[in-house]
Amino acid sequence: MTHQDAFEIATRGRGTIDITPDVARIVRAANTTQGVAHVFAQHTSCAVIITENADAAVRRDLETLARRWAPDGDPAYRHNTEGDDDMAAHARSVIAGSSVTVPVGEGRLLLGTWQGIYLWEHRAHAQTRRIVVTVIGE
Amino acid sequence: MTHQDAFEIATRGRGTIDITPDVARIVRAANTTQGVAHVFAQHTSCAVIITENADAAVRRDLETLARRWAPDGDPAYRHNTEGDDDMAAHARSVIAGSSVTVPVGEGRLLLGTWQGIYLWEHRAHAQTRRIVVTVIGE
Amino acid sequence: MTHQDAFEIATRGRGTIDITPDVARIVRAANTTQGVAHVFAQHTSCAVIITENADAAVRRDLETLARRWAPDGDPAYRHNTEGDDDMAAHARSVIAGSSVTVPVGEGRLLLGTWQGIYLWEHRAHAQTRRIVVTVIGE
Repeated sequence: MTHQDAFEIATRGRGTIDITPDVARIVRAANTTQGVAHVFAQHTSCAVIITENADAAVRRDLETLARRWAPDGDPAYRHNTEGDDDMAAHARSVIAGSSVTVPVGEGRLLLGTWQGIYLWEHRAHAQTRRIVVTVIGE
Repeated sequence: MTHQDAFEIATRGRGTIDITPDVARIVRAANTTQGVAHVFAQHTSCAVIITENADAAVRRDLETLARRWAPDGDPAYRHNTEGDDDMAAHARSVIAGSSVTVPVGEGRLLLGTWQGIYLWEHRAHAQTRRIVVTVIGE
Repeated sequence: MTHQDAFEIATRGRGTIDITPDVARIVRAANTTQGVAHVFAQHTSCAVIITENADAAVRRDLETLARRWAPDGDPAYRHNTEGDDDMAAHARSVIAGSSVTVPVGEGRLLLGTWQGIYLWEHRAHAQTRRIVVTVIGE
């Protein structure tokens, strides 16, 4: 049994957006007893991650660290077509990943208590991001 | 055909634990000719990774590097509720990932010769970690 | 419905190789209306990533950043059996990941316009890499 759906998210520049409710809605519609849900961003300058859903400071600190992993406007970059944040965004996307896969059981996401699914926007300015969710199981 | 099972691992603070045998056991029970196995940690301060299974020094060196990627007790962190290792653990988890997916063929994990599946504990102290394995295929 | 196939790629040392056409060919052969494709490298010193397919400078800049994330021949490494690039390659592989999963719809990869699938060789010298592709869906 396979169920696939997509949705769009308007971001407001760098930061994380909790997409757990959007994914959970699609998983419910899939009516899958047991399987997995794959959550994929069709872009190379944002990421889909799982991280703590309790203290928003965690996501702010991730932003702080990401600026070190891939600094904006680094003089070593050759790719800067769209500004100082362009190459940094591609690199953050490779580190954090374009997708996550989550187990599904009893028709719902089997996330741990403190796990949330987040779209992590890496571009400095607002973007529209398309997320494809595929639920596979039985 | 879908088969799902879970197990718990007691960690002893930072370091890696080879969970390949635990995953292989569930894959055998699934009796799947062809498909994939998804291995998921229900936590935001540890990771599931694939890395070299021959020389234990590889995992020690990963630990050394992870301390640079996300230093403990960094003065820039705002999230430090549970100690110096708290935010560092969340960041390491985002870099290394909460899950891996491995192909299954002829009823067994199609890992390369030197690949092992490891639970990577990022908290300084012992934890109990729950791993959900989902095998999908036919 | 499950379809699994594998192919080998000869790398020429560090750098990225576009494997999107190889994966797309296997997805077409799978004849899957809806599902996912899992692309897995059976090695611990290379990675499979999704990144921008337009400007090759993006992949050169990723190489520049990866040298910072895991420097070659770092004096802190204990694992250096196969040379200065050995441990660095394992660490880059953990950061970037051994596999990607991509949604499949209408029988083809549902990649965004600028997304390509790349094998990222992390060893300094030429290698032969084996990639296993599993398509699951219906």
